[in-house]
Amino acid sequence: MSEKLRIAVCGATGYTGFELVRLLLNHPKVELAALTSQQSAGKKMSEVLRSVAGRCEIVLEKLDPKALAKKADFAFLALPHGEAAETAAALLEAGLKVVDLSADFRIHDLAVYEKTYEHHKAPNYLKEAVYGLPELHREKIKKARLVANPGCYPTATILALAPLLKNGAVSHDGLIADAKSGVSGAGRKADLAFSFSEVENGIKAYGVFTHRHTPEIEQELSGAAGAPIKITFTPHLIPMNRGILSTVYARAKNGLSTADLSALYRRFYEGEPFVRVLPEGVPPRTQDVAGSNYCDVSPIGAGDGRVICLSAIDNLVKGASGQAMQNMNLMMGYPETAGLEGFAAVP
Amino acid sequence: MSEKLRIAVCGATGYTGFELVRLLLNHPKVELAALTSQQSAGKKMSEVLRSVAGRCEIVLEKLDPKALAKKADFAFLALPHGEAAETAAALLEAGLKVVDLSADFRIHDLAVYEKTYEHHKAPNYLKEAVYGLPELHREKIKKARLVANPGCYPTATILALAPLLKNGAVSHDGLIADAKSGVSGAGRKADLAFSFSEVENGIKAYGVFTHRHTPEIEQELSGAAGAPIKITFTPHLIPMNRGILSTVYARAKNGLSTADLSALYRRFYEGEPFVRVLPEGVPPRTQDVAGSNYCDVSPIGAGDGRVICLSAIDNLVKGASGQAMQNMNLMMGYPETAGLEGFAAVP
Amino acid sequence: MSEKLRIAVCGATGYTGFELVRLLLNHPKVELAALTSQQSAGKKMSEVLRSVAGRCEIVLEKLDPKALAKKADFAFLALPHGEAAETAAALLEAGLKVVDLSADFRIHDLAVYEKTYEHHKAPNYLKEAVYGLPELHREKIKKARLVANPGCYPTATILALAPLLKNGAVSHDGLIADAKSGVSGAGRKADLAFSFSEVENGIKAYGVFTHRHTPEIEQELSGAAGAPIKITFTPHLIPMNRGILSTVYARAKNGLSTADLSALYRRFYEGEPFVRVLPEGVPPRTQDVAGSNYCDVSPIGAGDGRVICLSAIDNLVKGASGQAMQNMNLMMGYPETAGLEGFAAVP
Amino acid sequence: MSEKLRIAVCGATGYTGFELVRLLLNHPKVELAALTSQQSAGKKMSEVLRSVAGRCEIVLEKLDPKALAKKADFAFLALPHGEAAETAAALLEAGLKVVDLSADFRIHDLAVYEKTYEHHKAPNYLKEAVYGLPELHREKIKKARLVANPGCYPTATILALAPLLKNGAVSHDGLIADAKSGVSGAGRKADLAFSFSEVENGIKAYGVFTHRHTPEIEQELSGAAGAPIKITFTPHLIPMNRGILSTVYARAKNGLSTADLSALYRRFYEGEPFVRVLPEGVPPRTQDVAGSNYCDVSPIGAGDGRVICLSAIDNLVKGASGQAMQNMNLMMGYPETAGLEGFAAVP
Repeated sequence: MSEKLRIAVCGATGYTGFELVRLLLNHPKVELAALTSQQSAGKKMSEVLRSVAGRCEIVLEKLDPKALAKKADFAFLALPHGEAAETAAALLEAGLKVVDLSADFRIHDLAVYEKTYEHHKAPNYLKEAVYGLPELHREKIKKARLVANPGCYPTATILALAPLLKNGAVSHDGLIADAKSGVSGAGRKADLAFSFSEVENGIKAYGVFTHRHTPEIEQELSGAAGAPIKITFTPHLIPMNRGILSTVYARAKNGLSTADLSALYRRFYEGEPFVRVLPEGVPPRTQDVAGSNYCDVSPIGAGDGRVICLSAIDNLVKGASGQAMQNMNLMMGYPETAGLEGFAAVP
Repeated sequence: MSEKLRIAVCGATGYTGFELVRLLLNHPKVELAALTSQQSAGKKMSEVLRSVAGRCEIVLEKLDPKALAKKADFAFLALPHGEAAETAAALLEAGLKVVDLSADFRIHDLAVYEKTYEHHKAPNYLKEAVYGLPELHREKIKKARLVANPGCYPTATILALAPLLKNGAVSHDGLIADAKSGVSGAGRKADLAFSFSEVENGIKAYGVFTHRHTPEIEQELSGAAGAPIKITFTPHLIPMNRGILSTVYARAKNGLSTADLSALYRRFYEGEPFVRVLPEGVPPRTQDVAGSNYCDVSPIGAGDGRVICLSAIDNLVKGASGQAMQNMNLMMGYPETAGLEGFAAVP
Repeated sequence: MSEKLRIAVCGATGYTGFELVRLLLNHPKVELAALTSQQSAGKKMSEVLRSVAGRCEIVLEKLDPKALAKKADFAFLALPHGEAAETAAALLEAGLKVVDLSADFRIHDLAVYEKTYEHHKAPNYLKEAVYGLPELHREKIKKARLVANPGCYPTATILALAPLLKNGAVSHDGLIADAKSGVSGAGRKADLAFSFSEVENGIKAYGVFTHRHTPEIEQELSGAAGAPIKITFTPHLIPMNRGILSTVYARAKNGLSTADLSALYRRFYEGEPFVRVLPEGVPPRTQDVAGSNYCDVSPIGAGDGRVICLSAIDNLVKGASGQAMQNMNLMMGYPETAGLEGFAAVP
Repeated sequence: MSEKLRIAVCGATGYTGFELVRLLLNHPKVELAALTSQQSAGKKMSEVLRSVAGRCEIVLEKLDPKALAKKADFAFLALPHGEAAETAAALLEAGLKVVDLSADFRIHDLAVYEKTYEHHKAPNYLKEAVYGLPELHREKIKKARLVANPGCYPTATILALAPLLKNGAVSHDGLIADAKSGVSGAGRKADLAFSFSEVENGIKAYGVFTHRHTPEIEQELSGAAGAPIKITFTPHLIPMNRGILSTVYARAKNGLSTADLSALYRRFYEGEPFVRVLPEGVPPRTQDVAGSNYCDVSPIGAGDGRVICLSAIDNLVKGASGQAMQNMNLMMGYPETAGLEGFAAVP
């Protein structure tokens, strides 16, 4: 009988699945017990993800919650929304703890979820689910059975704005997040729009005024502000694999300087293991967080009320699988940074 | 005696110089008469820019306005600011027409120029110089001896906002331009910050609240609005060679729809050879303008007052050398599109 | 009644089709009469290829040789092999001249074609078809009705080796071409293997000892040598859009120096408008030919018999659509460089 | 008093220095005691390498062997050649063990070193130094005080060819290594040739017949073969940050199949923790080793005597700093894989 926590990764052959496998293989407290994939069932994980060859010869299996419940104590769901909700329900009923990386349990308001995504397949778990941003909800996460892992854009944007809204430092009106993402955020799939030839050497915006991460961001910012918050969120696709930079625009109630803002952010994030407030005026680079679980933030004040906060994450780590593992650490009482000590490889 | 217009390119071995040579070599009305370079004088142009080998064996020479005045009728200045002003004065006095690609004559207000750049070396020409954005100042350009070619960020941003401000459609407050540029905008130089290893796979903002293109943008937007305009301008560096995307945020006085905006932009740019208003809701891609003199714009309205206008240019063509040649065409009475018929090579 | 040559592009919405449209729109002697696309029929070309918006509002149509024969005098086939052969036959019978960019008529030996590709659908035209590499077969091309446009790798590799083999300067044994291609060579399609996330930041070889361009290269090298030639051809995929570099290894019968080789290549390519022999010892860069119809070659000798010849092309221009237009120019008696005067945009 | 091994990294602000710091910070048996930098002395490491902010606040110091000898037990030299030799001598005399990442002690033959590089500054240590490729010299490394860490190209190329030469499976004549490297191999410096704008979107060869890694490769291959070996080595620069692919051409004495070769390589590398022989016929991708210490190799036989072996490494890890740490592990009796368990982050 194993003393390590037995892990199932459902949806192991997408990019967030890849990243979970990469990180979990070097986590000291866990072992991979089951990996699922609809398309690659029967193959070894290392045939699909050659980077782990020699260290992960597990055979991929079809997703069967009952079978998983016998092998695993804890599950990560890297599945499409809808499918995630159903699977989460089945695994929770079988006694597993679950971190769901899909959007299914992020939105507390069922109507908002169903307007944004689709008919919800396990609405009775919505109330129990905890939004898995440790910097805002650490204590709830520690006690949760079901954690809804935040989206990548929301992670970067909420961490940029929460200190301002929690401290009542900025107007609730006119908030803008102009975000730029690498291509891995689109997932692992055959799609002309994300082919190298289409993406390289160019940039475009997409989902202007309509991106599905907007309600998720607004929910959490509203919680931070204690009042309903609206935000204009504009994502862009840029020619790199990993990374999100969110450039957030707000208006301070008085003319905060960069020094004022820096002090405010340092207080807010004091003791946080994965949020780094950069030296005053230094803009974050996504290169410096790629592959790591860090979020680098840097608030800048014009002195006349205008405030820009820049935040950088790796969309697959702090924006997905690394944060999911951070949540597991909290849920299981492990050191919060276990398995997440790696740095960006620069350059 | 030649019947073609004899051209001097001063500063032919930077990237805007390269681009002038590339474009001028295929212009039907002109011939290259002199190319200058401080560092590469004595070499053939084709040794520095191998892409034109076999078609441009001119030997680079040191910059000497008197010598140039004997060989050339028209000069493009792709020189550092300061040096450009001095050279422009000398060439104008010798009877040449000049398009200056530096910032030296873009800012009408001497005090603003000197605060933003440095002591001005030819202030007596400020009044005569015409800001070379044909879409706003075509008639003046036609009569000008000295044209100040716009900056790359200003070109993209002004073309995105001018229709709104000229039509009084948006509030003058809270304008934001979040711009993203390829690396060629930094010029041709040895600089660790722009080395491949530092730039690839990442994005960062720079010059937050302080970039020198801000006063230039504000001057032209103020002219368009007929009132003083301030804008928050945030440039970003992204891992591609060519292209600028400017994402401009404004607030309409009433809830303009995308259809309303599209109609407004189409009227404004009707007949313009190089501004393309995209179909409603289609976001521009820098890929589709790279290497060409086009500016693709696409305004999008949320319906609740929020307006985003996206504009894409090639920073070295419409944002520099192509626009400079467009200005030459206007100044000389040539067809405005002569030599600028090329399209982006996609992919 | 038009005096321009009326052109049909069959398969206009792949990347070689895009490139034909880009180039033909600025060719002084031709007009686009019909563009076909199976998947996008009914759309305007400019909806699919936004870079030509405003200058190409032709509606895409399904491929119907009879309909095309009424509208067009000359056809480019940018179709999958097999489909190209059938279409070529129909169009030739209807009186059009044809440049086929597929592999269907490149291999003279039917058995070799059928082993390498598939059952040939128009073998009776094999004898008539001319291999469209102007540097080797210009006079035949001028008289041809049907030209088989060379493959991208073959173009780069044959131009690197032909001077050596034609002059009997190297051994016929042990020839190796280690070639590196940008991703656009894979075509415009949804395919995980060519998605940005899979290709960026990496390199791999593929088709080792088995790539289908090998027999085509060997056919032409055998013709140049006047004896059967075998070559080891290893293609690699690298993270850029356009460009092929072929690094060719040969063994000279005596210890040719770089100067000897350079002289030999200069003689061989004297007067060629699109092959540039670089200064001694200067290695070609694909950047310097991208977007243009040039092939830059540079032979280097170790002095002990070892010879390396490097050649660089744009796979979509000299390696496909530009060369196709060069062939059209020859077939129609136009200036060979008409419409192909453009240079690489550097950087 | 610390029980951890106290480490000095000399030259911590180049890319191999960065990588040493990244890896050593997570090594369980060591602690960073001193970091040197000529240009950045006085700054904190985290100001130069922001990726380690919060975890490495050491202040950079000028290189002073006497001062280092008091603080450190073990030194890595990431210094220019020449400077490395002098520093190594001083540190060895002070009792430290040294892994030198420069070329200074790689070449056993002083005359060859001095012809290839420069006057040697510590030739009396040449005999003692061990070439630090564990797969060939593990037992000597374990006992060494001074290890010469292999070059990046040599690591990839020797690991590709050693099994063939050690087994007498291929001819000694006509060996070719056509290698492709990412840009980080050029180091951290301001140099126009390695600026983003010059490198992106292109490929070129360099150092044809003259690259300084050739004698190093030949020395080790000669050792493996037990006879003098010559090789033609052609490096290329490609637009990615990390990774080397070496495509090695050899001629087997009999017609080895891929299966034969695969078996031979598996026997040769059995038990090696960092060399992975891929499944038959699967070409390695540099993406799958980037950031990790793995070397993926894949030999392919044409069956007619022609053999190609492909090998992929991360030039900064297995090709430099990771292998240096692997050597430290061997020299100190630590588990060979300590601190090197990380995988490539894919994508």
